[in-house]
Amino acid sequence: MSETTIKIGFVTVSDRASRGEYEDLGGPAMREWLEKALTTSFEAVHRLVADEQVEVESALIELCDEEGCCLVVTTGGTGPAPRDITPEATESVCNKILDGFGEQMRAVSLQFVPTAILSRQIAGIRGRSLIINLPGKPSAIADCLNAVFPAVPYCVDLIEGPYLETDTEVITAFRPKHAVRK
Amino acid sequence: MSETTIKIGFVTVSDRASRGEYEDLGGPAMREWLEKALTTSFEAVHRLVADEQVEVESALIELCDEEGCCLVVTTGGTGPAPRDITPEATESVCNKILDGFGEQMRAVSLQFVPTAILSRQIAGIRGRSLIINLPGKPSAIADCLNAVFPAVPYCVDLIEGPYLETDTEVITAFRPKHAVRK
Amino acid sequence: MSETTIKIGFVTVSDRASRGEYEDLGGPAMREWLEKALTTSFEAVHRLVADEQVEVESALIELCDEEGCCLVVTTGGTGPAPRDITPEATESVCNKILDGFGEQMRAVSLQFVPTAILSRQIAGIRGRSLIINLPGKPSAIADCLNAVFPAVPYCVDLIEGPYLETDTEVITAFRPKHAVRK
Repeated sequence: MSETTIKIGFVTVSDRASRGEYEDLGGPAMREWLEKALTTSFEAVHRLVADEQVEVESALIELCDEEGCCLVVTTGGTGPAPRDITPEATESVCNKILDGFGEQMRAVSLQFVPTAILSRQIAGIRGRSLIINLPGKPSAIADCLNAVFPAVPYCVDLIEGPYLETDTEVITAFRPKHAVRK
Repeated sequence: MSETTIKIGFVTVSDRASRGEYEDLGGPAMREWLEKALTTSFEAVHRLVADEQVEVESALIELCDEEGCCLVVTTGGTGPAPRDITPEATESVCNKILDGFGEQMRAVSLQFVPTAILSRQIAGIRGRSLIINLPGKPSAIADCLNAVFPAVPYCVDLIEGPYLETDTEVITAFRPKHAVRK
Repeated sequence: MSETTIKIGFVTVSDRASRGEYEDLGGPAMREWLEKALTTSFEAVHRLVADEQVEVESALIELCDEEGCCLVVTTGGTGPAPRDITPEATESVCNKILDGFGEQMRAVSLQFVPTAILSRQIAGIRGRSLIINLPGKPSAIADCLNAVFPAVPYCVDLIEGPYLETDTEVITAFRPKHAVRK
């Protein structure tokens, strides 16, 4: 594999989907959104794990450190229920937490449902990877990505990742002038 | 006592009120709001403690673990002053923090006073109990409950508590369709 | 020095500025804003340090504990890049974090750029000092101070600092009635 292959990780966290009792809808929804939004081509690396903190942590570490994904998105496991542990797993593998992502995703989701405040979604940096927790519900995944993705390419620049470009018909990435490459 | 008794805990955190130098206005204000908002009947369990972290922690633990309150609300002790330790006590007894509650309470309070950003109110889950920090001032208590309570009954469902119902003239609880019991 | 001298600390966190490769624009921008906003006179204490957590911590501790600054503002080092460690240093020296400051600064900055969610700015209390992280860019410093400063004088009151007064042509400090001194 060429060193310039850009990889994005997709982690579905769901007891039922991991046991095959339930079709994984979140993983494909995240990937479809990214495929539409990015003009930069990427290889998608999928993982499907149970709501077990150690399993989610292992998947995240593998996607960041071994696969070298510049971006890893997760779906599921961010609520207040006893089995919801995705934010705990994310926080434990990240060296920096970016509170603005969770704030902004909740603010946008609040326009649709008052239970948005129950979401514990976070985002953080592990080495050269940005990890973002997304909701479990496919329509809410798109709402959240629409809200935060304009900041993602510049964030990936800042952690020394690849230069991601978007289809401005879908989403417009923002970079300060000095960071824009022609 | 019947196993189906629903209990809600009310904790007033105040040095002066706990010494009897000051009437506890926050505790009754929280209870009155809940009595108007809920059509589900509940037993109110009150505690009045000084601004000492260990005392607040003990009260919260007792209300959650021994009294079995599905919801515990606190008033007072959430500012930046040296004696304000309610959020620290809450965080230390919770296994999950729900950042959206604090964000939303501050966002709503900001419409009234710019000093809303000084509030450190949080909410979190301890076992099968939801704990929410509220301000000390009775009028601000109502503003905060109006802002976050629509999400509370579904949150209590998710932590396997009782099915709480509200008087829609006061507040409308939101649940996803699959969670609504006829 | 008289005991009543009021001091405010200004910390520029920048590898390049600390090596003299780059002029410190953030430090003077913060000071100019404060000089315009406050009618209370103060002594400015400046520090210029590299993006090293231990250096930032030392500067903050010195300004709070030895210089006795009631307010310390920092500029730089709050992004997601590997060398950005100002929030970590701030958190480690504070005994209380005031999440509302970061939320409000990001909310205001979001009106200008979607990458505002990448900012990890926090504020917190160390003893009798309020520490606030500000952005690196001078124009963004003013946006953030405009957003949060109305709450600063009352916060300083609550931690037993001096009574700060503002020029209401620039910014209006808010205090509850009982806290206003004629």
